[in-house]
Amino acid sequence: MKIGILGTGIVGQILAEKFVQLNHQVMIGTRNKEKTLAKKDRDIYGRPPFSEWHNNNQQVRFGVFEDTAEFGEFLVNATHGVSSIDALRLAGDKNMEKKVLLDASNPLDFSKGMPPTLTICNTDSLGEQIQKTFPNTKVVKSLNTLNAYIMVNPSLLPEETNLFLSGNDADAKTKVKELLVSFGWKKQDVIDLGDISTSRGTEQLLPIWARLYALGNPMFNFKIVTGNPPAE
Amino acid sequence: MKIGILGTGIVGQILAEKFVQLNHQVMIGTRNKEKTLAKKDRDIYGRPPFSEWHNNNQQVRFGVFEDTAEFGEFLVNATHGVSSIDALRLAGDKNMEKKVLLDASNPLDFSKGMPPTLTICNTDSLGEQIQKTFPNTKVVKSLNTLNAYIMVNPSLLPEETNLFLSGNDADAKTKVKELLVSFGWKKQDVIDLGDISTSRGTEQLLPIWARLYALGNPMFNFKIVTGNPPAE
Repeated sequence: MKIGILGTGIVGQILAEKFVQLNHQVMIGTRNKEKTLAKKDRDIYGRPPFSEWHNNNQQVRFGVFEDTAEFGEFLVNATHGVSSIDALRLAGDKNMEKKVLLDASNPLDFSKGMPPTLTICNTDSLGEQIQKTFPNTKVVKSLNTLNAYIMVNPSLLPEETNLFLSGNDADAKTKVKELLVSFGWKKQDVIDLGDISTSRGTEQLLPIWARLYALGNPMFNFKIVTGNPPAE
Repeated sequence: MKIGILGTGIVGQILAEKFVQLNHQVMIGTRNKEKTLAKKDRDIYGRPPFSEWHNNNQQVRFGVFEDTAEFGEFLVNATHGVSSIDALRLAGDKNMEKKVLLDASNPLDFSKGMPPTLTICNTDSLGEQIQKTFPNTKVVKSLNTLNAYIMVNPSLLPEETNLFLSGNDADAKTKVKELLVSFGWKKQDVIDLGDISTSRGTEQLLPIWARLYALGNPMFNFKIVTGNPPAE
């Protein structure tokens, strides 16, 4: 499948590598190619800058948001939440029409330092805003509740954990679920929470996620442990 | 220990029963005793109204908020989040002075139906507001992320799961942790997230909690599964 990933950060890179391993054709997109290639800083995991990463991953096509959205039959939003709507506008309504958009972003504001706050929450969510802004695209929120390394390799954790799905289109959710299963997730571990408004729940997991992260180990995920319902 | 529980709903009742089993002296408090005794409705779990519950649990003293806060050396806030500050004002600053207040409440607004929204979130939390309003009380947020039956009986679930602590006073958190251990929680499963501002994280778990609850089984809890940190 042709997959277009919007966003060249760690999430975009790690997903791109995984999609290539799984024999998909992949393009990764940014706002401004020159600026992205000029970046020199390593991220908090010590990953090299984008240009070096791209040298090592030349099977991944590299373009602007618009090219990338046009290229992909299936799209991933891996941009920073605060600029996702802008990025998707550059990608172009037309290029996203009728396609599934896996939205892995979170509306996190780091501008006042750690811990981040949310730019949208409670009675709205970024997932919903994206769906509302691009009504002809099938938005499925997922993968926004965990570390990118675990996203594509659930066996990095010693137990099965959970992923969540939010979206209005059942077929689109099935497609995303299949992709997650191809990453190594068990079907029963992917919890369909309901329509896109359930993104509020997963995006609001980020505040506790950030506090758990601050305890020192980013390699964790949530598992929902269920018992027998009450007798009455 | 003398324990005062503010709030006569399911959380207050179940905690009161458990504290009695553990040989504590317990008082449960409400705003208006007559109104609470006059309630006739069963809750969603089919539990009888308060008067019937109290007939079956006569070791639990019953009073207004003020009596209850005065009685307890250790206090629990099990009131509805939307009225917690009011309830605690009735309990009285003086009666709560220097005491630990285990705050199990959540700022949930059910007035517009299901799912509930939060009345406070993101850059503030109910835990913080309570601590700010009652600076001479040692507020510890905990138990607000799970079903009351599991709170007092973690073995209702087939695996160890997690509880969280938020609070500014280390000794108060130690006291709460000991109490949780006496309920059957393992020490290592109680995660100290940090100061009271980390309540934002646990209170904002409620939106996904409510969605998971809506899937049909209220008997679940979060488990944080951790792997090895990245090599770099």
